[in-house]
Amino acid sequence: MGTATNELEKMKNTEKPAWEGFKGHLWKSEINTRDFIQANYTPYEGAADFLADPSEATNELWGKLQKLQKQERENGGVLDMEADVVSAANAYGAGYIDESLKDKEAIVGIQTDKPLKRAFMPYGGIRMAEESLESYGYTPNPKYTEIFNDYHKTHNQAVFDVYTPEIRAARRNKIITGLPDTYGRGRIVGDYRRVALYGIDYLMEQKLKDHENCGHGQFTEEDIRLREEISDQYKALKRIKEMAAAYGYDISRPAENAKEAVQWTYFGYLAAIKEQNGAAMSIGRVSTFLDIYIQRDIQNGTLTEEAAQELIDHLVMKLRMVKFARIPSYNELFSGDPVWATLSIAGMGMDGRTLVTKNDFRFLHTLENMGPSPEPNLTVLYSSRLPEGFKDYAAKISIDTSSIQYENDDVMRPVWLDDYAICCCVSATQTGKEMQFFGARANLAKALLYAINGGVDEKSKVQVGPDFRPIDSDDALDFDAVMAKYDDMLEWLAGMYVNTLNAIHYMHDRYYYEAAELALMDTDLKRTFATGIAGFSHVVDSLSAIKHAKVFPIRDEDGIVTDFKIEGEFPKYGNDDERADDIAVWLLKTFMEKLEHYHTYRNSEPTTSILTITSNVVYGKATGTMPDGRKAGEPLSPGANPSYGAEQNGLLASLNSLTKLPYEYALDGISNTQSINPDALGHDEDERIENLTNVLDGYFNQGAHHLNVNVFGKEKLVDAMEHPEKEEYANFTIRVSGYAVKFIDLTREQQEDVISRTFHAKM
Amino acid sequence: MGTATNELEKMKNTEKPAWEGFKGHLWKSEINTRDFIQANYTPYEGAADFLADPSEATNELWGKLQKLQKQERENGGVLDMEADVVSAANAYGAGYIDESLKDKEAIVGIQTDKPLKRAFMPYGGIRMAEESLESYGYTPNPKYTEIFNDYHKTHNQAVFDVYTPEIRAARRNKIITGLPDTYGRGRIVGDYRRVALYGIDYLMEQKLKDHENCGHGQFTEEDIRLREEISDQYKALKRIKEMAAAYGYDISRPAENAKEAVQWTYFGYLAAIKEQNGAAMSIGRVSTFLDIYIQRDIQNGTLTEEAAQELIDHLVMKLRMVKFARIPSYNELFSGDPVWATLSIAGMGMDGRTLVTKNDFRFLHTLENMGPSPEPNLTVLYSSRLPEGFKDYAAKISIDTSSIQYENDDVMRPVWLDDYAICCCVSATQTGKEMQFFGARANLAKALLYAINGGVDEKSKVQVGPDFRPIDSDDALDFDAVMAKYDDMLEWLAGMYVNTLNAIHYMHDRYYYEAAELALMDTDLKRTFATGIAGFSHVVDSLSAIKHAKVFPIRDEDGIVTDFKIEGEFPKYGNDDERADDIAVWLLKTFMEKLEHYHTYRNSEPTTSILTITSNVVYGKATGTMPDGRKAGEPLSPGANPSYGAEQNGLLASLNSLTKLPYEYALDGISNTQSINPDALGHDEDERIENLTNVLDGYFNQGAHHLNVNVFGKEKLVDAMEHPEKEEYANFTIRVSGYAVKFIDLTREQQEDVISRTFHAKM
Repeated sequence: MGTATNELEKMKNTEKPAWEGFKGHLWKSEINTRDFIQANYTPYEGAADFLADPSEATNELWGKLQKLQKQERENGGVLDMEADVVSAANAYGAGYIDESLKDKEAIVGIQTDKPLKRAFMPYGGIRMAEESLESYGYTPNPKYTEIFNDYHKTHNQAVFDVYTPEIRAARRNKIITGLPDTYGRGRIVGDYRRVALYGIDYLMEQKLKDHENCGHGQFTEEDIRLREEISDQYKALKRIKEMAAAYGYDISRPAENAKEAVQWTYFGYLAAIKEQNGAAMSIGRVSTFLDIYIQRDIQNGTLTEEAAQELIDHLVMKLRMVKFARIPSYNELFSGDPVWATLSIAGMGMDGRTLVTKNDFRFLHTLENMGPSPEPNLTVLYSSRLPEGFKDYAAKISIDTSSIQYENDDVMRPVWLDDYAICCCVSATQTGKEMQFFGARANLAKALLYAINGGVDEKSKVQVGPDFRPIDSDDALDFDAVMAKYDDMLEWLAGMYVNTLNAIHYMHDRYYYEAAELALMDTDLKRTFATGIAGFSHVVDSLSAIKHAKVFPIRDEDGIVTDFKIEGEFPKYGNDDERADDIAVWLLKTFMEKLEHYHTYRNSEPTTSILTITSNVVYGKATGTMPDGRKAGEPLSPGANPSYGAEQNGLLASLNSLTKLPYEYALDGISNTQSINPDALGHDEDERIENLTNVLDGYFNQGAHHLNVNVFGKEKLVDAMEHPEKEEYANFTIRVSGYAVKFIDLTREQQEDVISRTFHAKM
Repeated sequence: MGTATNELEKMKNTEKPAWEGFKGHLWKSEINTRDFIQANYTPYEGAADFLADPSEATNELWGKLQKLQKQERENGGVLDMEADVVSAANAYGAGYIDESLKDKEAIVGIQTDKPLKRAFMPYGGIRMAEESLESYGYTPNPKYTEIFNDYHKTHNQAVFDVYTPEIRAARRNKIITGLPDTYGRGRIVGDYRRVALYGIDYLMEQKLKDHENCGHGQFTEEDIRLREEISDQYKALKRIKEMAAAYGYDISRPAENAKEAVQWTYFGYLAAIKEQNGAAMSIGRVSTFLDIYIQRDIQNGTLTEEAAQELIDHLVMKLRMVKFARIPSYNELFSGDPVWATLSIAGMGMDGRTLVTKNDFRFLHTLENMGPSPEPNLTVLYSSRLPEGFKDYAAKISIDTSSIQYENDDVMRPVWLDDYAICCCVSATQTGKEMQFFGARANLAKALLYAINGGVDEKSKVQVGPDFRPIDSDDALDFDAVMAKYDDMLEWLAGMYVNTLNAIHYMHDRYYYEAAELALMDTDLKRTFATGIAGFSHVVDSLSAIKHAKVFPIRDEDGIVTDFKIEGEFPKYGNDDERADDIAVWLLKTFMEKLEHYHTYRNSEPTTSILTITSNVVYGKATGTMPDGRKAGEPLSPGANPSYGAEQNGLLASLNSLTKLPYEYALDGISNTQSINPDALGHDEDERIENLTNVLDGYFNQGAHHLNVNVFGKEKLVDAMEHPEKEEYANFTIRVSGYAVKFIDLTREQQEDVISRTFHAKM
């Protein structure tokens, strides 16, 4: 009785002063950020002319930060590193961009005690944490060497404790690659907005309630695991509160105005990047949410547009500062020091209203107020029904900065509803309701060579795959025979790959659990199991070559097929030619089906992506010559892009090939990166904007998933590669597969790869 | 091909020089200690007259050790403690009883660097480890405070992270008690003999093979967990090898003679007690096994009986030295500093031969050579078919030392076959093939009071159990009404209890895994889930009183029933009266059936025991007045013993009541402790021996499970309590529920409890 009365009382008590003027009911009686947004946001259909210039404080702080970034580059890529403090939300007191300018920071909070100083994060793997220190000249603290070797096992050690010899061989020979067993899995996006909307105390109360209800009656092992996780989440919320208190903020209560809303939200994210060094640490979809607070303050007369823009500029400045300590092999995979602080804006609501607000303009405007930048990884959730004013402004920013990517809201919304966010490069997850078990990728190109060579690796000559009968004839390859062998090899690869990821995620949950992020998410989570594909276009073109031309195997002294002689022409993927494009669809669908044959950890839902990021270069190095003519060691084509030089029919034909890949078969995303010569796009800004929005409308209306848009010519890249010291190239940003990067931060090898890609000179 | 050839080669290579003269095949091609024993042991049907006196070295070392034990007692119960080294098999170099006498130690190895110094074991719980230091005046090392609070979670913390408020209340109110959540679960008996028979390297090879085969194909979460466990076991084997090397022994190879066999076996056990502080740390069943080596050496002329006895004496001396750091609340539960270094001897083989060898005599003989001692907890696996010579010798030792317990091999063998060992007080597990999830006990007496009071605790007045309808009439209690309510309450209790144990064992596996012990066991283990019952006789007598007499509830000012008025007589358990004994069987069977309703961790097999150890005193303190007349706060009757004063018809009638409890319903054991006046047993030694063996034959032939035999009168106990300083009481040992203890080491409260028990003055 008492309890029931208290519960009723609580439901009445939810009218907090912080919520004055906010409409709606559901979000007040449960954690439901989406319901709050839907009940309170103001769509904006106008143009960009309301936007404000950077404040003096913004210019001063950004100037300071640019100097630090320059120092960082001059210093070999790292400004400073921590060796003596294990990072945690509450591991440090307050830190600022510049102590003397701290009153100018509208939004405060950095990862350690000093700007751009990289934190020490040993839980993922002590060896990596120490290697990253040593590779930049820092000395590991022997105290932690002892603790994380002798007393506390790390994720990396645990994963290797359970790997099979088969998995180790597959990993070493790079048929599965980029596995999150030497770095944090990332891709988990807390609903950081909850901190602002509800305050930490209410979130703690709710977690306590979840703890009470979990496994009520009888505990299964799953219940026991979850109960411990909730307990760890609860403790993380305490740490977040302590962290904010060090900056003088009491976030136990909800945010009461726009400045607090931005600050509270950022504190949620800051806790995540203090506790985890996942490959992707996205902030999610905060724009429309924060606009509600800004709108209220502007209407109250307590905030100006200038001050609102300053809040967003300063938040974005903080996102431009996120850094992690990495090891050289990681930097090879993911070139240019990216963190994927992905920030998703725009999109349409399920009720037909656009989710674009003035704030979505403000986020794009940061690329003007503070110049181009790879971070945050700005992602426009695109629909041809977005307001024209917004589409035009986004296109203009794309053309000016090459810093934006576009993802098709119209294909994602039916799957993830209308409050999802991109958690990495191209992968959607429902904010606060879903996490991903990230799994990097399988090299399907190498798998085709394994099919031909009976599981023997074409580089190491080791039996890595199963000892199946190889192609033993020297005649032209028979399409049906190759396909049958490839099918068997893909079945093996999918099973072994899923096995590997099951081990990784079991151990990640056990040894490197993301308590701070998951504390800001629902306890009862959906989980996807995100596999990936590398070498996509080369398999498609190789199978097309075998089918439509004559491909003769060439053997080395051991009888291993290491080269091919191709006679005749064959259709290639990327030319809107169904003979090749049908193979692409078959390949994607087949691999996805095979993945679904296997049990995935925590009954997660298997998905896949066609995405390589910049690791296409490393993967290519490890892959032999393919039947499509690509030579051993050359970079693979990135993501779902057609092979270099394959596109013969212009941009639109290339895009059309991509539109044929059903998003349903690759729910983790299909990455496509295109570079267009400014001249090909139009003769002046207006024409270019119009053409670009037309291209995007057409491409996405046909169901394609993703597009990275670069607008520049090859000559600019060549000049930047040769003259990186030129002032104009300091912030020169380009989109690569899945993220943006400062071109001069790429390795020479990566720069050459980018330059060798297709630059469309015609539509 | 290569692999298969190697495998065949390996099978041929199993003829090691260490095995010269040993017969049999199966044990050579797989780990199978039992098969080795069966093929090679020599049953002994003779008398005790071959036994040798203690060697000079034994006398010298034992004298030294006794001095240390005296110092320990004078020092408040602890001689020395470690605060600066976390215990592990390889944490210390070599240590000896006395550095200057080290060449006299035939068998070497102690837990730390100094004799009787207690190791620091924080993995079970840092708070307990530190509390135990502080309660003896030692200062915890802040380094470990930091590590085990800030970086590595301990078992105790993890368990409390997942407990429900209901479990916490049940625990606080002591309806479930003695849970292994503040101490190691123990009761896991490695097959330490494997170290001697196979050497560590072969054991490592086999674990590697198990790792390869585990989850072959696809990993479930269970496979991943097990793979990590095997990996941890493998590492533990390395540590054991390092530990032995510090003493100058290379145990990578099998033992080559008797001395090495005893030493190697002890090293296996030593690793266990260096890595775990479980409540019971049994050494298992090593006697017959070691006899094979001794027999071979004696036949070879390389060993004398004197030297053989010295090996056993020195092994037993080491077992008498095992100590753990405990906290005061633990000592209250388990009084007298016991470790349950239980050592099982005798028993019959499945082929009808006795497993008694000369070595079983040698182990009993240690109680003569070095006087009585509570440790090792010497357990005779009894059958009336044991050789007469052995039965007589065991009875003699019982009469002289009161240091032995007997368990019925004839009821255990059909369940656990013929190589099981007692893993604690009375619980059998198959050696090397089975582990137990130990779960202490539920207070069924308190549950009866909960049934009457609708789940409200009679001491704290808190609603602990479910809010069921209480007995609300003040009339004499209605038997059927009480039984219906009791049934509901037991159902709740069983479910909540199983839930609690599931959480404890999940976390014990996760945070305090017994890698060293489990490394010496099969990878594919059987697991029992050992619950327990406290307050047994009081429930039986209370229900009998309600049925056969008139019991009126008496309420306190809150309406809670806290006392009873009993009118009339009623039959009591312990008098061979079926009216009471039938209730006893019903109670056991019903509780066991209810336990089976629930899922138990790792699909273990639920069992139960009727066993309280000395915790009957603490449990009694927490239990209100019962309808059988036992007053609030008085000790519960221990184990399955009849209530104090209930036994009116002599020893045999009491034993007969016990024989009616089917072992099948309490596979974890049914503990019975009886004290007999020497005069009641006979007028001289021969008569006493004959009478005691007759009692044991009769009791066990009727299917009873366990008997602790004490042969002394009440007056001796009273004298020892009043004059503990007398020389004759220094090693005065008595059997209490499930173990033996030095009487003067019991608390005053415990001593008074023992004195108030029934001393049978007639048969």
